[in-house]
Amino acid sequence: MATEQAIRLLQELLGPRLGLSKADLAAHGKSESYFPDMPPDAVAYPESTAEVQGIARICAAERVPVIGWGAGTSLEGHGLAVQGGVVVDFSRMNRVLDIRAADMDVEVEPGVTREALNEDLRATGLFFPVDPGANASLGGMAMTRASGTTTVRYGSMRDNVMGLEVVLADGRVIQTGSRARKSAAGYDLTALFLGSEGTLGLVTRLTLRLHGIPEATTAGICAFPDMNSAVAAVTETIQMGIPMARIEFADAATAQAFNAYAGTDMAAAPHLMVEFHGSPESAAQDAERFAEIVADHGASPFRWSAREEERRALWSMRHNGYYAILASRPGARAVVTDICVPISQLARAVEETQADIAASGIPGPILGHVGDGNFHAILLIDPERPEDLTEAKALSARMSERALRLGGTSTGEHGVGMGKTAFMRAEHGEGWDVMGELKKALDPLGIMNPGKLVPPTQ
Amino acid sequence: MATEQAIRLLQELLGPRLGLSKADLAAHGKSESYFPDMPPDAVAYPESTAEVQGIARICAAERVPVIGWGAGTSLEGHGLAVQGGVVVDFSRMNRVLDIRAADMDVEVEPGVTREALNEDLRATGLFFPVDPGANASLGGMAMTRASGTTTVRYGSMRDNVMGLEVVLADGRVIQTGSRARKSAAGYDLTALFLGSEGTLGLVTRLTLRLHGIPEATTAGICAFPDMNSAVAAVTETIQMGIPMARIEFADAATAQAFNAYAGTDMAAAPHLMVEFHGSPESAAQDAERFAEIVADHGASPFRWSAREEERRALWSMRHNGYYAILASRPGARAVVTDICVPISQLARAVEETQADIAASGIPGPILGHVGDGNFHAILLIDPERPEDLTEAKALSARMSERALRLGGTSTGEHGVGMGKTAFMRAEHGEGWDVMGELKKALDPLGIMNPGKLVPPTQ
Ligand SMILES: Cc1cc2nc3c(=O)[nH]c(=O)nc-3n(C[C@H](O)[C@H](O)[C@H](O)COP(=O)(O)OP(=O)(O)OC[C@H]3O[C@@H](n4cnc5c(N)ncnc54)[C@H](O)[C@@H]3O)c2cc1C
Ligand SMILES: Cc1cc2nc3c(=O)[nH]c(=O)nc-3n(C[C@H](O)[C@H](O)[C@H](O)COP(=O)(O)OP(=O)(O)OC[C@H]3O[C@@H](n4cnc5c(N)ncnc54)[C@H](O)[C@@H]3O)c2cc1C
Repeated sequence: MATEQAIRLLQELLGPRLGLSKADLAAHGKSESYFPDMPPDAVAYPESTAEVQGIARICAAERVPVIGWGAGTSLEGHGLAVQGGVVVDFSRMNRVLDIRAADMDVEVEPGVTREALNEDLRATGLFFPVDPGANASLGGMAMTRASGTTTVRYGSMRDNVMGLEVVLADGRVIQTGSRARKSAAGYDLTALFLGSEGTLGLVTRLTLRLHGIPEATTAGICAFPDMNSAVAAVTETIQMGIPMARIEFADAATAQAFNAYAGTDMAAAPHLMVEFHGSPESAAQDAERFAEIVADHGASPFRWSAREEERRALWSMRHNGYYAILASRPGARAVVTDICVPISQLARAVEETQADIAASGIPGPILGHVGDGNFHAILLIDPERPEDLTEAKALSARMSERALRLGGTSTGEHGVGMGKTAFMRAEHGEGWDVMGELKKALDPLGIMNPGKLVPPTQ
Repeated sequence: MATEQAIRLLQELLGPRLGLSKADLAAHGKSESYFPDMPPDAVAYPESTAEVQGIARICAAERVPVIGWGAGTSLEGHGLAVQGGVVVDFSRMNRVLDIRAADMDVEVEPGVTREALNEDLRATGLFFPVDPGANASLGGMAMTRASGTTTVRYGSMRDNVMGLEVVLADGRVIQTGSRARKSAAGYDLTALFLGSEGTLGLVTRLTLRLHGIPEATTAGICAFPDMNSAVAAVTETIQMGIPMARIEFADAATAQAFNAYAGTDMAAAPHLMVEFHGSPESAAQDAERFAEIVADHGASPFRWSAREEERRALWSMRHNGYYAILASRPGARAVVTDICVPISQLARAVEETQADIAASGIPGPILGHVGDGNFHAILLIDPERPEDLTEAKALSARMSERALRLGGTSTGEHGVGMGKTAFMRAEHGEGWDVMGELKKALDPLGIMNPGKLVPPTQ
């Protein structure tokens, strides 16, 4: 059989670095959210581009699915082996290859995590800004076009990846982009691969843009009487042109989950958490102007601080938001939604969503990167109650439809995976077919992460 | 014959808005730079997406080339009808459709020029930043992934186009992107079309990101003893994190051309022109800090001003740089080069290029968007002397090779067209074949602007 033959050849190539144990397959067959487990037939742990190329060639010859794997934190079942096959786990390709401080860029292998990279950069005065809540791998982040709390200021992976090395479905290796800050030299292949979720090729190397650690940082938090005034404060801050580095929303339920999880004493009310970067004067000034705006909207006094420990505590709490919310309903799993709308539609989108969730009876705390118009409802379902899943999926579908109606997108940052394919036709129309045609051009055998993102082929 | 049949059908569709006169064909058969004229068989002037769709369908049925045309200012022969066919001139699709100030975005037709758009935006306090020297169309700018003097701060077309309406080669109409600030909903089709030079489809509508006009602007100019100290000042300014809105380099020959063309009295020396945006305090502070840096590098005192007329005069001079340089050798035509390198390699790239030009005997003033590592040599050739063209092309080729050797790109902003295809293999390796495969997937008949950007098919 093809898969058995592929496994034999992969064992020759990788020796003990081909995982076949039950534990290994199980660990690479589950997802962070609500999808059923789908273990692969084997897990490959390559250590070089040449090995990845070997894997791709073997799988192409045997027509066996190939699925990339970074930290496995994606939320739409991205990495599940829907049709079996070989998961390629990049955890052994985790070297920071070249920090070029003068050019503010860096070359990394895909298995490096965002936290490990920033650890390595510490001495340089530079940092890499994109920060999903999880400690994801840079390869995985590139493949989902991830963003995070600092995207409002520094952009998403789309803005911070300058180039990629990619092993294509047929084993060819290409280098996209360059180390120049811009280029008009033909199709933007880097951008095409960003967000492609491993359906077009495997990333074996990334060139990333770095930023200078700001001279000064101020950060703080405040509570609002209601969601509408919090969102109005965000909109006004953006329109006044106050340059926020971060601006995050958490509703009352999220605040309570934080309290329970992290021992904080937040009011049971909607909150904004913000950060400003600049010179000591400008960062303080920005915080003061922000304090005035939120006061006008009835917020609790805006407590801000320039002290590093306090800021760290604040953002670590925020980054653990998903886990805090999960813990608020013991034994629950989550359907995580992720819509993004134009800022003028944000209040309406959150309001309608809150009402819809309240009517459903399913707990669904809301939090998000509101500076981008992006927010999540974490719909907590009891895995023993199939009607919970049905209800949560219906809520999620209505959120996606709402986002599209308001000029937005059904996924601001998490991506399509298996979970969001149902909305791609409504979002892209015939553009979704175009995605399928591009997929077919680069992966005619359909072996790269099949069952994800593009229209199903029969 | 197919072309005749297509013309008959297009006349039915467009009536008098199908241009067939010699003058019309000639006007759409030439380029800004050194390429020989190549008039099309007809020029279509559509007024709606539906008409563009009709044009595409007719041309697909008859297998006749279709070539988009904005303002015709591109520099690599992008719009020339290499294989004849129909030029689609978008000058009648020039409406600003919807300014959404609260969301800081705007919907436009492709024929709107960058100056017309900013005229329309004046009352809103918003502006569109991308500013190639020419008053190009936004459709053309999207298709070349253009940038300009403000890209160092506000990004290029890659960063400022949120979505596109595109008529594909087979007449399907798709909408890419959305009005959300970010999305992870599948392949980034917007980015794929940006910079595709009309080889994948015709753009009939664009959603653009706008920016707030800064509260305060300061701008100024200074002369340096030599090119190396000017470039060192740029590098230092970037590394100090001083947020420049513009930073432009002009060498001694360019300064002299400005003097002759615009009646200025610049020293015959390398110059930097810069601008800072911010609050009155921060913009003044940035200018002061910059003044200190350039003084350290031996520059003439940095004269800066916050007065609008003075700034306007400065940037209008800069935007006319190409015409000033052309005028410095009466009767000349230009081979315009456009390399972009990592900032650490900029001094070396400019120095080697200057030496190479000096040795050639061809005049070649240098100017550029040095904050991005991007610069141009305008190689002035006598159209009567074929040996000039040979020499200029050899110089240009060596510049491209140099850029690639230094980790950069053979074209920072002008694009590939016909002029840069010779360097695509060296720049992209098998990535260039991938571009060809994508082209084939979306335009299997090869009718969209044939002979440009992708590898030739036989
Ligand atoms: C607590 C929590 C908070 C989160 N917060 C955010 C957030 O703020 N913003 C955000 O964007 N996301 C967020 N996410 C989602 C997730 O962290 C991101 O999607 C992240 O980018 C996934 O990275 P990963 O390394 O875990 O990738 P994986 O889950 O391992 O893989 C993601 C996809 O990329 C493919 N892939 C991985 N590596 C490669 C490679 N080298 N080559 C080719 N394909 C590859 C996989 O096949 C899969 O399709 C959060 C998740 C959790 C659990
Ligand atoms: C004086 C001068 C200064 C310049 N300075 C700069 C600069 O600073 N930065 C820079 O990036 N460029 C610069 N350029 C080059 C030029 O202005 C840019 O390439 C610009 O983007 C071209 O726009 P256009 O409207 O003239 O496009 P055109 O030249 O008409 O077309 C460009 C390409 O796009 C295609 N096209 C046009 N419209 C459409 C459409 N609606 N749908 C599909 N395809 C279409 C054409 O077929 C062609 O391939 C300069 C040129 C001159 C003459």
